[in-house]
This record gives sequence, C-alpha cells and structure tokens, in this order.
Amino acid sequence: MTDFSTICAISTSPGMGPVAMIRLSGKKAIEIADSFFHFGTKNKKLADQPANTIHVGTFSSGEEIIDQVVVLLFHGPHSFTGEDIVEINCHGSVYIQQRILQVLISGGARMALPGEFSKRAFLNGKMDLSQAEAVADLISSSTKASQQVALHQMRGGFSTEISDLRKQLIDFISLIELELDFSDEDIEFADRKELTELINRISTVLLRLKNSYQLGNVIKNGIPSIIIGETNVGKSTLLNVLVNENRAMVSDIHGTTRDVIEDVVNIQGTAFRFFDTAGLRKTTDRIENMGIERTYETLKKATIVILIVDTTNSFPVIEGRIKKIREKLQPDQHLIITANKVDIGKEETIKELKNLPLKTGEEIIFISAKNRINTDGLVQLMIHSIDLGKANGEDTIITNARHYEAVSHAADSIERVKEGMAQKISGEFLSQDIRECLNYLGEITGEITNDEILGSIFKHFCIGK
Amino acid sequence: MTDFSTICAISTSPGMGPVAMIRLSGKKAIEIADSFFHFGTKNKKLADQPANTIHVGTFSSGEEIIDQVVVLLFHGPHSFTGEDIVEINCHGSVYIQQRILQVLISGGARMALPGEFSKRAFLNGKMDLSQAEAVADLISSSTKASQQVALHQMRGGFSTEISDLRKQLIDFISLIELELDFSDEDIEFADRKELTELINRISTVLLRLKNSYQLGNVIKNGIPSIIIGETNVGKSTLLNVLVNENRAMVSDIHGTTRDVIEDVVNIQGTAFRFFDTAGLRKTTDRIENMGIERTYETLKKATIVILIVDTTNSFPVIEGRIKKIREKLQPDQHLIITANKVDIGKEETIKELKNLPLKTGEEIIFISAKNRINTDGLVQLMIHSIDLGKANGEDTIITNARHYEAVSHAADSIERVKEGMAQKISGEFLSQDIRECLNYLGEITGEITNDEILGSIFKHFCIGK
Repeated sequence: MTDFSTICAISTSPGMGPVAMIRLSGKKAIEIADSFFHFGTKNKKLADQPANTIHVGTFSSGEEIIDQVVVLLFHGPHSFTGEDIVEINCHGSVYIQQRILQVLISGGARMALPGEFSKRAFLNGKMDLSQAEAVADLISSSTKASQQVALHQMRGGFSTEISDLRKQLIDFISLIELELDFSDEDIEFADRKELTELINRISTVLLRLKNSYQLGNVIKNGIPSIIIGETNVGKSTLLNVLVNENRAMVSDIHGTTRDVIEDVVNIQGTAFRFFDTAGLRKTTDRIENMGIERTYETLKKATIVILIVDTTNSFPVIEGRIKKIREKLQPDQHLIITANKVDIGKEETIKELKNLPLKTGEEIIFISAKNRINTDGLVQLMIHSIDLGKANGEDTIITNARHYEAVSHAADSIERVKEGMAQKISGEFLSQDIRECLNYLGEITGEITNDEILGSIFKHFCIGK
Repeated sequence: MTDFSTICAISTSPGMGPVAMIRLSGKKAIEIADSFFHFGTKNKKLADQPANTIHVGTFSSGEEIIDQVVVLLFHGPHSFTGEDIVEINCHGSVYIQQRILQVLISGGARMALPGEFSKRAFLNGKMDLSQAEAVADLISSSTKASQQVALHQMRGGFSTEISDLRKQLIDFISLIELELDFSDEDIEFADRKELTELINRISTVLLRLKNSYQLGNVIKNGIPSIIIGETNVGKSTLLNVLVNENRAMVSDIHGTTRDVIEDVVNIQGTAFRFFDTAGLRKTTDRIENMGIERTYETLKKATIVILIVDTTNSFPVIEGRIKKIREKLQPDQHLIITANKVDIGKEETIKELKNLPLKTGEEIIFISAKNRINTDGLVQLMIHSIDLGKANGEDTIITNARHYEAVSHAADSIERVKEGMAQKISGEFLSQDIRECLNYLGEITGEITNDEILGSIFKHFCIGK
C-alpha cells in the first residue's frame, strides 16, 4: 500500500540563505521538472539529458519567471532514493523556495512526508533500516562523537555486524533443524561444543552492543550533568560561564533542534545535558528554603555532578555539605567538588579542602566562576570524566532506543538458548528461541518490519530527507 | 589590492537541515578539495575530471571520515564567480558543516567575507554591480513583488536600461566634443533639435527611474502602515488578527532577517511594515493620557493609516476623531476608517458612518476584530490601496538607496544640460554635465567604482553568496 507518487520538499535548512535546494523524487520527477525548467535553448529537455548532469536555466510557471536555477539530474536506481531525482538549486529566498514548491505541486508532485526520501531509499533497497535511521542521526549530530557513531552506522558498520550475527545464527539453526528432520535416528549433526562456543560468541557481541547503549545515549543526547550548591555559592555564574563561553555552539544547537535539546551545551565538542538548568536558575529560592532534598530526584539522573561550595565559608560547613551529597550518589556518578571564590576564599578552608580525601570517581577543583579563574580546568575535568574514546567510528555503538530494545530482546533469546543447551533441551525448543533472536535482529536492519514500525520511525525525520 | 585567495563558506541557510552546501572558489579550489575528497577508486582526482560534473565520495581529514558527500565541479571562467568552484553537498548537521569548513581552511582556503562570491563575480566580469546587488535582494525577497523586481534586476534589466542611456549620452557627447575640436570653424555637427529631443528622452527615463524608488522602497521594505485609535477600540486585537492569521509568514520573515524587519507582516504576499506596533501595544495608556498628538510624527511616515473607531460610541465622537486625523494627513496617504465592534455597535452610529462622505484616498469598512467579521475585507482594502501592479518583472523599479542617489544625481546633471541647451551655453559646459551624468550612471553598474564603494556594498550581503 506504499504510495510511490512523485514527492518534493525543501532539502536545505529552512529559512533564508544564499542557496536552497528543492528535491523532487519519483517516476514523474523529470517530467514535472521539465514543465517548469527552461534551458536557454528551445526544445531542449531534461528528459533527454544523461544521468548525473548539471543544467543551468530558468524556473518559470507560465509567464512568471521564478528564478534562475541550477538543476541536478539523477536517474533511478542510481540515486539516493533509487528513483529518478531532480534537485533544484535556487536562490535561498523563503518566497522563492515556497513558490517553487507550490509550482511543483501544481505540476503533479506532492509534499514529501518527514523522512520520505530516506524511507524510499530503504524500500527500494538502497540502504537498510538502521542505515536510514543513521541518516537522521547524522543530520542532527552536533559533536564529533555523535557524528562518528552515526556515520559508522550509515556506512553500514552496524548492519554488517548484525548481518554477521544473523548469518552465524542461520548456520546454527539449519544444523539444529537438520537434526530435527533426522530425529528418529538420533544423529547430532551439530557438534555441541562448537555450538556452545558459537552461542557464547554471539551472546558476547549482543551484550557488548546492549551495553554500548549507555555510551551511545550519552553521545547522542549529551552527558547528563547537574550543577548543585547552596544559594550564592555561584551556581548561576558558573552556568553562565559554561554557557556563554560556548555561546556559538549553544545557539547553533538551539537553532537546529530548539524543542528537543535546549538544555544541551556543546563544550569543546562534547555535549553536556544540564538538567533543569532553567529551573535551577529560577528555583534558587525554593532550593534554599526547602533544602537540597528536592533536587535529589534529578541528581540521580546525572552522570556528572558539579557540587559548588563557597570557600568563603568555613570548612566544617562545606565538609557537611559534601558528606550529604556523597551519601546520595551512586558509584557510577562522577562528583566534581568545585571550590568557588578561590580568590577571596578563606585560606584555612582552601587548605583543608586541598587535603580532603577523595573517593574513586571524585575530583576537586579550585576556581573563581566570577573572575574566570581555572574555569577552563573545570571544563577539562568535565570532558575527561567520561571516556568517549570508543566513539571513534570503528566500534558499533547503539544510540537508538529501538535498536537497544531489539538487541536486548535478542540477547534475552540467546540467554535462553544458552540455558537450553546447558540443560540439553531438545533442538525444537532451541530452534524457537533462535528464530526469535533472528527476528529481533532482522527488525534492526528492516529485514523484518511492517508499515506501522516504518511509520513510527520515519515520522521523526525532518521533511526533505 | 583585491585578494583572490581561495575562499569557502556555507552557502545554504545556517542551522540543521537534510542537506547543506559548502562552496569553495578560487585558483586552489580543486586542489584543496582533492586533498580531502576521496572517490571510491584509488588515484582518481577531481583535478582530472571535466567541468560541470557530479561526484560521489567521502570527505575525510586524515583517518577521520567526516561525511559521504556529493561534489559539484565547475571550471572558471564558466562559473558563478568566474573562478574554479567546488560545491560540497554534505549532510546538514551543524557539526559536519563546521568541520568541513575547518578542514578546508586547514587545507589553505580562507573563510569568505560577506558577499565575496558575488563580489568576485562582479570583479571577474560575470555580472555588473547592480546585478550583483540584485542577488542579495533576491535572496532576501519575501513577496512576489520584491522577488520579481530583484530577479528583473539580476537578469540585467536595469543594467540594460542604464547602459542604453549611457550609450545615447556617449553618442551625444562625442558630437558635442567634435564641435569643440572644430570650434574655430563654428560648425554644429549635432542637430540641436535632435539633441534636445534626446536629452528630453533621457531626462524622462531618469525621472521615471527616480520616481520608481518610492514604489521600490515599498516593495522591498513593506508598505509603511499604522493602526491608530483610542484605547479599547480594538487596536491590539486587530493587530493580533492581522499578525496571527499570517503567523506562518511572519515567522518565516523573523527567521530570515530577524534584526531588520521584525515589524513586517507578509499578508497574502504583500509586505506591510507596521510602525512601532510593539510600541503601540505598550503605550496604549500613554496615548490615552496624552492624546493622539504624540503619534503624529509616526503617522507622517505611514502610507496606510488604519483608524479604528468604536461603533459602540456615538457618531459625533467618532466624527470628531476622523476630522482630527484627516487634518493631519497628506494627500498621498491612504486612510482606512475601520469601524470596529460592528456586531455590538449602535445602529444609529453605523448608519451615520455608512453615509459618511469619503474623500479621495479614503475608505471605510465595518468589522469586528474580535469576532473576525469582515477582517478579510480589511486585508483586501489594505492590499489594494497600493498598486504594486508595476512590479511584474518588466519595468525597472529602483529598490536600492545607492541606485536612487546615483539616478537622482544623474537626473540633476541632465536637468542642467537641458537648461544649458535652452540657454545655448557652450559645448564645453554641456560636456562637463554630461560627463558627470555618465559617471553617476556608471556607478550603478560598477563601470566606475572604487574599493570603498565595493566594500560598503558587499559587507551587507550574507556570507556564502
């Protein structure tokens, strides 16, 4: 029931720019473009031009000349979508972009749905589902780590890993099922030891993939962080320092995905997701009045906890505060004790803090947020407290909740296979769990899918991709 | 002293989008692109590819793969700038766009200055100055009228008109100067009657161009409009109706040129510039307290004056108000008397208003802003009160203050020539004024220019064009 009519959309960032690109894909793409695109030469038509060529001309509707444009011509199946594609590069006036779209629609195209170009690329076998999903991740990547992971996935790294697993499982299942056919004769075609080793290998890979999601999530969404401390210790000053010195990147992110990650700050290429920072700014009083207890719920979600203490206070006060926070933290949370106002702090307090015994996962740093003393040192601590080194584009890292769910289910099935083999259950039952695992893995690459799943995946894409 | 090093910039709208384009122009464009662009095939190089071709490959810096890209290759002089151009189409992640730019700069390109691509197109003789300026106008055009005028200018309509004028003037001056050479012999090569006709023709064209600026300004910047009336007659309700029902277009404009025209509302394809609307909203009390006198300064600037009156008031009150405003208006201002709250108004008042004698340039309309009665009728009145019909892309309309100044000066020179001829002054003096006129016209197309003028023109362009 898939609708393969010719679709069009603006494929560059919305708004005014020097150049904009409108993409047209489908059986009638070239025919529709030909009704409005005019070469200088009479009777010359896009339909007669070879694939992968560039053409300059005017785009008009009747008497109305809309723009001088540069047109790129691609013939299916050798195109992004696998269909005929015409890309119209026009001057990036919002009016011109909209007008060209209107005219293309009047000529028989329809507006593309979100992600519809990528969906067609998938349906036409140009890429598998995880690759198509990676296109969206790549576009929204705002750090090197997220870009490398998405690019690796788009280039088929993840797909290769999944299809290797599936191949091994299919070999396994065929041996098991062969045994079932000869079950009367009680023959074991499959060497149980080899099979166990294979299943262990697969289980290891699936667990690694499953575990990579925590890192993947951090890479994609930013390192969950929180700045806490009592009123007047310098929380909002510090937040402003972190945000302002990186304003360019902040506004970049804002401009791109305003609704989604507006609390994310890209600091020197690493994304930090500050929880409830706006709230922090606003609710300073509330925190003061009701005590820090209220923030503990949020605290639990943070990987990096920046606890600001005021060195103009006496050490015992600060020590009490640190103790209280330590009690609330989990072992996998990083506590950065940030001793602020070091330029006007009490010598005694600073000295005592310098001697403070630190636990694993803790750091201490002395700064003045107001006077920018050592704030860059803090930034370095934040960046290095999480090892994003694995995101080098070589290892597969799962960043997608759908993939995580499928891999988790697949891993569960494999665990059952392992147990079953240990308990020497019949091949019939093994086969069932292996088939389940194969299904889950197939969901990732889209070998097993349905319209509903596809719909829910592509609707989160932007229009024009 | 022009710097022709290889330049690069993002040429699509800033921010995230499916696709972005980075443009590289200059002698080393292809060489620099070749250091980072990799075909699937080894040893294949962009430098060996023919002009106007499309290539697919990866863009990498050392081991770091940045993106899969589509590259367009243009060879100078057959390119937009007249230089070698490489256009890199990448996935529109902000990170990827920035990273590609960084890498190109590390490879020897430098960031393009605002308008530098267009400036090079001008300096390399690909377009004249008024055409290059039209590129910027075309990009920022947000209505059909502004797009048509800019496109006409970019396609050389204005240039042709100016160069026709110059050609005629040069013919004229050569005859005059020939006479000067033979002045001893007192010969008149130039038939004075024909010359007078020629100068009259040129004068007519220059005056038409000069006068077109008022329309041009309206087309480019929106029709200057104001909504006035006493407190509680429904000013802000009406403004909200006008703005909200066109929110899509408003935010389009906002997104594009936020700083410049934030009071401009694009209503059904016509731009209206509401003076001080934010102020109007805020200063309602002040207007009430101090009387309407304070708004008269602003009133002078408006072409369309929407006077809202409240039909729940008695007619004499309203009549007084209308009278007061009428006294302040100039003949070229359009007054739209907007009788609001027509659904709850006094029958008597409405009846009297319907019989109100209207002067030329005045209209009356009965609406309810709150209940959206006939507000569309008001919009139609606003749209039709200004005839933008001339902006059909055929007549030359001046939209640029620089052109207006040059044309005005040229027209002044021609007036002096006219007077001089009437007074039969010597050819020497005529020649001086004609040369002056030629200079002014040459400034428009850039035949006569200097670095300072060019600098001030192109610095207002966006980067990437």
